[in-house]
Amino acid sequence: MSSPLTPESAARRAQPELLMPQAVLSRTAARLAEQFAGVFSVQTVERYVFESYTALHRTANVHTHLTSLAQRFATDRLTALAQSQGNAPKDVPEVLFLCVHNAGRSQMAAALLTHRAQGRVHVRSAGSAPAGFVNPVVVEAMAEIGLDLGQEFPKPLTDDVVAAADCVVTMGCGDACPVYPGKLYLDWALTDPDGVDLATVRGIRDDLDHRVQVLLRELTAPTLSRTQLAALTGSPTPA
Amino acid sequence: MSSPLTPESAARRAQPELLMPQAVLSRTAARLAEQFAGVFSVQTVERYVFESYTALHRTANVHTHLTSLAQRFATDRLTALAQSQGNAPKDVPEVLFLCVHNAGRSQMAAALLTHRAQGRVHVRSAGSAPAGFVNPVVVEAMAEIGLDLGQEFPKPLTDDVVAAADCVVTMGCGDACPVYPGKLYLDWALTDPDGVDLATVRGIRDDLDHRVQVLLRELTAPTLSRTQLAALTGSPTPA
Repeated sequence: MSSPLTPESAARRAQPELLMPQAVLSRTAARLAEQFAGVFSVQTVERYVFESYTALHRTANVHTHLTSLAQRFATDRLTALAQSQGNAPKDVPEVLFLCVHNAGRSQMAAALLTHRAQGRVHVRSAGSAPAGFVNPVVVEAMAEIGLDLGQEFPKPLTDDVVAAADCVVTMGCGDACPVYPGKLYLDWALTDPDGVDLATVRGIRDDLDHRVQVLLRELTAPTLSRTQLAALTGSPTPA
Repeated sequence: MSSPLTPESAARRAQPELLMPQAVLSRTAARLAEQFAGVFSVQTVERYVFESYTALHRTANVHTHLTSLAQRFATDRLTALAQSQGNAPKDVPEVLFLCVHNAGRSQMAAALLTHRAQGRVHVRSAGSAPAGFVNPVVVEAMAEIGLDLGQEFPKPLTDDVVAAADCVVTMGCGDACPVYPGKLYLDWALTDPDGVDLATVRGIRDDLDHRVQVLLRELTAPTLSRTQLAALTGSPTPA
């Protein structure tokens, strides 16, 4: 009988830093529980922190700093949850961009809208099947226009961010997003930047920049019907 | 400008049953909150129900009965969470089988061990990247030996089921499972039943049946060291 230990599992056993960092996550949960005191129980906050870590552990390629990513992800999800329950301020419209991997289109759209909005809307993004890292060509194309995606990471779609959104923009993820009544849903047909060259990604970036500006205008000073808005922002990328 | 409505999104708008079934999920949450009264807050239970629905919605191919699958998934996760916190009975060892898709190997292993154990252990399964449905050839091979997988469905890996497990068996999912200290981890090298013929799946099934019986004996009457157990259950499938 041969050993069942694959090289991977043997390496894992040899690296204690890959153990569940319970102490770090527990301290994170304790801090967040203070921050959300009166809104969420310690139990709820702890669940969010551990679940967020496990979800990112499943998909993120790089496990360094995973506890700090989990803290950011859990914080954002708890904020979204509090907003959707009316327990946190929602002073500006919440926009959620969704694509398959949260590694290209939805990351670009989120960064562009955040930049253009200057605080007038708040933006989140997620993926129906999150990748391990943000597409490096996308990072490069965004850096060219001064937007830094270096701190961003692909996140799985969770219910809390959908529930908190006023506007959900899907880009190529089919029906992977639960549809709540009463929200503005848009579906944008765009080239997937996965595997294409920098020049093509620049085109996608500029296309998205146009669309988010139209969307921003509508979210802050509505003048169009939903059909008009969909038509104005949803035109397919020129081939 | 052309319309951004893809045929899929147009169809979605035309099918109200694909809307977030908030009323059904809220009733489910209310029932489960009663069941877990004194253990979990209504808020925690509600979160689990909605999150479980969203997670399955992301990956399950069939959306019929998704609310009832979400109820089963949420109930099992809440039970696991209560167990790991010492708030629910854990009379027998908890075993968790993990593979990539929770569509083949981990489903077979879970059904076989459940069958062999006759209540002496409790079994869960999950996948690091769950498929849309259980592999039909696997269902067929299991039906041949009288085990019905018709009610099973692929589930994403969540922290609660890892935390509740005494023994975690991974089959081909690399390091996608957070490693908690103090649990028995085994890594089994097995042919992936995805895309192979019925005869090959039968071989995988019988190999798994042997392994789960060795594991069962050890979990109920330990006589081996962990290294011996790993060696005995972890031999690669004969090519």
